[in-house]
Amino acid sequence: MTFLKNAFQTAFSRVKKRFTLPAFPQRSKPVNNANPRKIKAGIVGATGYTGVELLRLLAAHPHAEVAAVTSRSETGVRVADYFPSLRGVYDLAFSAPEDAPLAACDVVFFATPNGVAMKEAPALLDAGVRVIDLSADFRLKNLAEWQQWYGMEHASPAWAAQAVYGLTEWRRDDIARARLVANPGCYPTCVSLALLPLLRAGALREGMPLIADCKSGVSGAGRKAAVNTLFGEAADNFKAYGVAGHRHLPEIRQTIDALQEGVAAGLVFVPHLTPMIRGMQATVYARLKDGADPQTLLEHAYRNSPFADVLPAGKVPETRSVRGANVCRIATQKAPGSDVWILMSVQDNLVKGAAGQAVQNMNVMFGLDETAGLTQAALLP
Amino acid sequence: MTFLKNAFQTAFSRVKKRFTLPAFPQRSKPVNNANPRKIKAGIVGATGYTGVELLRLLAAHPHAEVAAVTSRSETGVRVADYFPSLRGVYDLAFSAPEDAPLAACDVVFFATPNGVAMKEAPALLDAGVRVIDLSADFRLKNLAEWQQWYGMEHASPAWAAQAVYGLTEWRRDDIARARLVANPGCYPTCVSLALLPLLRAGALREGMPLIADCKSGVSGAGRKAAVNTLFGEAADNFKAYGVAGHRHLPEIRQTIDALQEGVAAGLVFVPHLTPMIRGMQATVYARLKDGADPQTLLEHAYRNSPFADVLPAGKVPETRSVRGANVCRIATQKAPGSDVWILMSVQDNLVKGAAGQAVQNMNVMFGLDETAGLTQAALLP
Amino acid sequence: MTFLKNAFQTAFSRVKKRFTLPAFPQRSKPVNNANPRKIKAGIVGATGYTGVELLRLLAAHPHAEVAAVTSRSETGVRVADYFPSLRGVYDLAFSAPEDAPLAACDVVFFATPNGVAMKEAPALLDAGVRVIDLSADFRLKNLAEWQQWYGMEHASPAWAAQAVYGLTEWRRDDIARARLVANPGCYPTCVSLALLPLLRAGALREGMPLIADCKSGVSGAGRKAAVNTLFGEAADNFKAYGVAGHRHLPEIRQTIDALQEGVAAGLVFVPHLTPMIRGMQATVYARLKDGADPQTLLEHAYRNSPFADVLPAGKVPETRSVRGANVCRIATQKAPGSDVWILMSVQDNLVKGAAGQAVQNMNVMFGLDETAGLTQAALLP
Amino acid sequence: MTFLKNAFQTAFSRVKKRFTLPAFPQRSKPVNNANPRKIKAGIVGATGYTGVELLRLLAAHPHAEVAAVTSRSETGVRVADYFPSLRGVYDLAFSAPEDAPLAACDVVFFATPNGVAMKEAPALLDAGVRVIDLSADFRLKNLAEWQQWYGMEHASPAWAAQAVYGLTEWRRDDIARARLVANPGCYPTCVSLALLPLLRAGALREGMPLIADCKSGVSGAGRKAAVNTLFGEAADNFKAYGVAGHRHLPEIRQTIDALQEGVAAGLVFVPHLTPMIRGMQATVYARLKDGADPQTLLEHAYRNSPFADVLPAGKVPETRSVRGANVCRIATQKAPGSDVWILMSVQDNLVKGAAGQAVQNMNVMFGLDETAGLTQAALLP
Repeated sequence: MTFLKNAFQTAFSRVKKRFTLPAFPQRSKPVNNANPRKIKAGIVGATGYTGVELLRLLAAHPHAEVAAVTSRSETGVRVADYFPSLRGVYDLAFSAPEDAPLAACDVVFFATPNGVAMKEAPALLDAGVRVIDLSADFRLKNLAEWQQWYGMEHASPAWAAQAVYGLTEWRRDDIARARLVANPGCYPTCVSLALLPLLRAGALREGMPLIADCKSGVSGAGRKAAVNTLFGEAADNFKAYGVAGHRHLPEIRQTIDALQEGVAAGLVFVPHLTPMIRGMQATVYARLKDGADPQTLLEHAYRNSPFADVLPAGKVPETRSVRGANVCRIATQKAPGSDVWILMSVQDNLVKGAAGQAVQNMNVMFGLDETAGLTQAALLP
Repeated sequence: MTFLKNAFQTAFSRVKKRFTLPAFPQRSKPVNNANPRKIKAGIVGATGYTGVELLRLLAAHPHAEVAAVTSRSETGVRVADYFPSLRGVYDLAFSAPEDAPLAACDVVFFATPNGVAMKEAPALLDAGVRVIDLSADFRLKNLAEWQQWYGMEHASPAWAAQAVYGLTEWRRDDIARARLVANPGCYPTCVSLALLPLLRAGALREGMPLIADCKSGVSGAGRKAAVNTLFGEAADNFKAYGVAGHRHLPEIRQTIDALQEGVAAGLVFVPHLTPMIRGMQATVYARLKDGADPQTLLEHAYRNSPFADVLPAGKVPETRSVRGANVCRIATQKAPGSDVWILMSVQDNLVKGAAGQAVQNMNVMFGLDETAGLTQAALLP
Repeated sequence: MTFLKNAFQTAFSRVKKRFTLPAFPQRSKPVNNANPRKIKAGIVGATGYTGVELLRLLAAHPHAEVAAVTSRSETGVRVADYFPSLRGVYDLAFSAPEDAPLAACDVVFFATPNGVAMKEAPALLDAGVRVIDLSADFRLKNLAEWQQWYGMEHASPAWAAQAVYGLTEWRRDDIARARLVANPGCYPTCVSLALLPLLRAGALREGMPLIADCKSGVSGAGRKAAVNTLFGEAADNFKAYGVAGHRHLPEIRQTIDALQEGVAAGLVFVPHLTPMIRGMQATVYARLKDGADPQTLLEHAYRNSPFADVLPAGKVPETRSVRGANVCRIATQKAPGSDVWILMSVQDNLVKGAAGQAVQNMNVMFGLDETAGLTQAALLP
Repeated sequence: MTFLKNAFQTAFSRVKKRFTLPAFPQRSKPVNNANPRKIKAGIVGATGYTGVELLRLLAAHPHAEVAAVTSRSETGVRVADYFPSLRGVYDLAFSAPEDAPLAACDVVFFATPNGVAMKEAPALLDAGVRVIDLSADFRLKNLAEWQQWYGMEHASPAWAAQAVYGLTEWRRDDIARARLVANPGCYPTCVSLALLPLLRAGALREGMPLIADCKSGVSGAGRKAAVNTLFGEAADNFKAYGVAGHRHLPEIRQTIDALQEGVAAGLVFVPHLTPMIRGMQATVYARLKDGADPQTLLEHAYRNSPFADVLPAGKVPETRSVRGANVCRIATQKAPGSDVWILMSVQDNLVKGAAGQAVQNMNVMFGLDETAGLTQAALLP
């Protein structure tokens, strides 16, 4: 696997080489794992769903603590007053971004709308703070494509080039050395974890496009006031959306193209909204070469990955099996009477699909056990 | 279209010819459409979800009335006491099947578990009563296949051969003459209505299998006590099921094979359970021949079908737009950067997917306006 | 009962006499019930939940048709494009309020936020159009109280005085003569229908306040973008709100005080939000005089009221039994080991609690059968 | 407070004195808190919702480990195969009750249907194992009443007399010395925690009964196959149940009578089913004596209780703020224009209402920090 993994990282590196990298300074605040000092974490924009999830997870982290949370609209409000689930857990209040001691943090998470991190992260990075961006600002290497999908000019091309795409299971070494991690989108995580072992092995047969039919809980749309995610609109309802083009499509393409060039050209991605709070399933359809054994490929790929759980053959995953937990569970099944394989991949969109993977990346960046603070079992029922 | 439709019906006929048809006796109780006498309808097994839905729909029917409802377990209980939604609507009580005046009905609906109608319907049919079976007993023409999927021997091969598959929009003439209608399954209705116009036109390109990724509300599993459809198990949860083989797969194959032989061989069908009461979406992926225009094909196919609603190009359907209504809404979209077309089809699994289509078939069988009793708008929100 | 009912109406009249009534002109457009001409209805502000529900109900009405719908934000958009549930049902498009032929309507429904009808209805009323206001503008007779709860000055005190409070079962005669009906709030309808028969009979014992513990589905909060009614906030969650004061409290007090003065002084009203789309339950606790028999009082009071359904003794109502139907179902039970009676009352907040009762009032105003267009059975499941 | 607390415990003791206590043997397996050995816990009947919740919570406990789980129906099945949420968390398989090493455990939890623990716990207790029973077998001191409500003869009156009612916040000293703890019901916990501080202070005014209007998520009905808790029946629905008599009524009465005799006589308790998985709210209505200040009484009573959280005045609790967390949050509000106080109390019925409080009791019994293993923040959204 080492060989293959290197090949993969080389593939990613190929992309990165197109950009000029800024010089990599020594970190000013080394964190010694044996040292009892906790990692000081800051969260920018902590009033949304990924923000509150970061707060929940970091509260249980044995080696990290939240030192600053910012919100422009809620400045001065205690976190525990804003999120009643955190009463008794945090004493902290939201600070205005400019007043928060972010530069004194070891790591800052951006849980902000797209377009914020690319403006505010560079100053922190220059100050030696590591940054994990949960928005889409640093996910795409092709900035022309980024600008087309996100409708704005990129404010920090140099950092976009240097950012490491934080799909932890596939980029551990790069993440360990990274100063800036672009935390993957929820759909790309769910789809890529299922597909990459097959792509790396060159198991896909040509001639049929990859089909990724994905379903997400409503929290994926965030916590902003909007009519179409009201309870009265989204409950007891199912629908596709973004069929004509969703921002996660180029992100998935970038990831899978790095492993088997040309395959991504035939990727079809349709996201759907399903009436649950958390949870996401990707059902991926692929035609494999004769003799390809996806069950073995998946098990092998993730044999050392505690958060990519390959189910035994014949089992089917369900989203509630990962509710609140930082796990992606994957199963595979050959379609009856067909040479098409069905990959089923579930995760909690707010955990492995966002805040949990961000904490996992923090663990890797700081040399901690990858599972630190992420061992809570899923909430079932 | 007439030509094509005949071709389609011939295709079905080809299948039917393999069986010996019982002689078709004169109906004993002709119903004169001009005559104000209402059609007398019986319902066998009316304590489940399709049963109560038939009761709801027939209560609003201008030309039909429920004359008998049977239930072995609830004999003597008033329907309005059993289903509080029907208080003030029905005075009827459940009868034991042997005591109910079913033979005096014009039509009897079987809303029973699989295996009941094939035993009990023949006597009624022989007595001149028309039968609409909402179970799977008469859906498959290949009885060897039926017996394999349903795990029992078929009790009435002759009637199975004669039964007309009641996908109303595609079999109106046959249904009008039918004595026994096999009401289609929910998934087959939803998938077939989207696909058939393309198949009839020979628009599918070879080389890529058809992918039907389907999602159903929980009422599709029926109203029997079971752990896996408890609220605590099914709420806030999403999962695939029946991936290794679902009984609706051979039913869909039979339907689509009748139109474009060989295509069904490559059908992949994956049903999922989504946490809503009613509603179903089929997302179908197909590669079309150059120049094929699915929007036009769909609009043309259903230009005279009030319950197959083709959305304008660019629109996406949602299940709540058909909640409680006998409509299947279909939209089509080319996948961005791909030659794959996405067909999206939604229906209420209990209405167009079951009881509503059964009433629609009754209307056709009795020469009524196809929309009689089925004009209620969907319940939104 | 006639005597008691008169007493009740006198009680209401007592309130009304405090205000100067505008002269009552002859209606310019008499509607003859025998005449096949349909009632022309207009809807102002039809993009919300009560608006779409009016559209759904009026589409099925045998003697009325929607002639105009207005929306300032959606001017020119077809109703069927805005609400996909109405595809195939309406051809109408939203008009700007100033362009809509409202003055040519027989009746105009206001489904607008509070504060609109009091400004726009008077001109229509003066033109001879009858008005049914689903907002709160004309519900309270005490305008000082109204202004305190609604935070604005009342724009039309004279019409507020003349408006008839449209709790149909209790004000039929007044409604039949009314030019302006103030359609009751959802909570007041649900609580009052359960309580009024007991109050009219003087059955309440002094010394214990009335407790009305109420639970509403989320659609009661309307269809405006807001964080606290997002799916992610309201699903799988239960909470009280408005505990320190809810606008429906003075409305309930006004209604019950008219029947048994002084009782309302001790009314405690706590609304809760429950994670369902539609539906409302009021659980009312009251101590009754020895010998009072609420079951008989309720059955007697509503023996001629098709939409107030008193369940048999020992039964408990459930909200889904009225989903989509214009019925309030009421049950009563003596608390075990106590002299407290429990009244349980359920309705669909959008139907009997809003649009359905509005159509019921229209029927009464125009001399139609009270049930016209309102006979659809509830959607269960 | 010490004085009052003693008074309360004396009140409980008064009840206990009516029974003959079995001799209290020395425990055979003392657990030394300083000793790193983990508490060995057994769970009898772990396939239900309280069972899986115990498994989830104990997996995160720093000082306890699950040594045995039993299930008669799932003998030999791995826990992680039965509950996919526990994949990667447990290696354990279910044992047959007779084969499980329960007698070698330090503590055994019974998560069984009523009637099992009273038969099987005594042997374990005699062997020196401590027992925490989550069923109702040992909750009522008055066995005649128990037998009447639970419809069976009690198999172990002596242990019923000795059992300590495990409402942790109010019985810490007794629990610390207990060999057998009767873990309280969900409703009794939620209602009692809100009421007891007022009762202890004698703050209730006579003349008005206590009203406890309670609402529970569907998981409270357990995980057994049943029609009325199917998703299709319970979703989007609200109803009361058990109005004529619920088994938690005598349990609440026993608890509150111990503090202010006579008050419980006037208790009215109505449970409702609300469409959410987890969560419970009690809304309690009480008339207080002049000058009584429930906010202060509550804050004082729970100033040292980490899991009874009194919200600031003016705040209202919501169930999701405790989803998955072992906290009961309580708020109080005077009804506007009334002398009635409204107490609102929320908890997760499976955590503080069942498995969480059981672990809390285990902590107290074994001299651990009361919060050990119970510090996870609630899952929001």
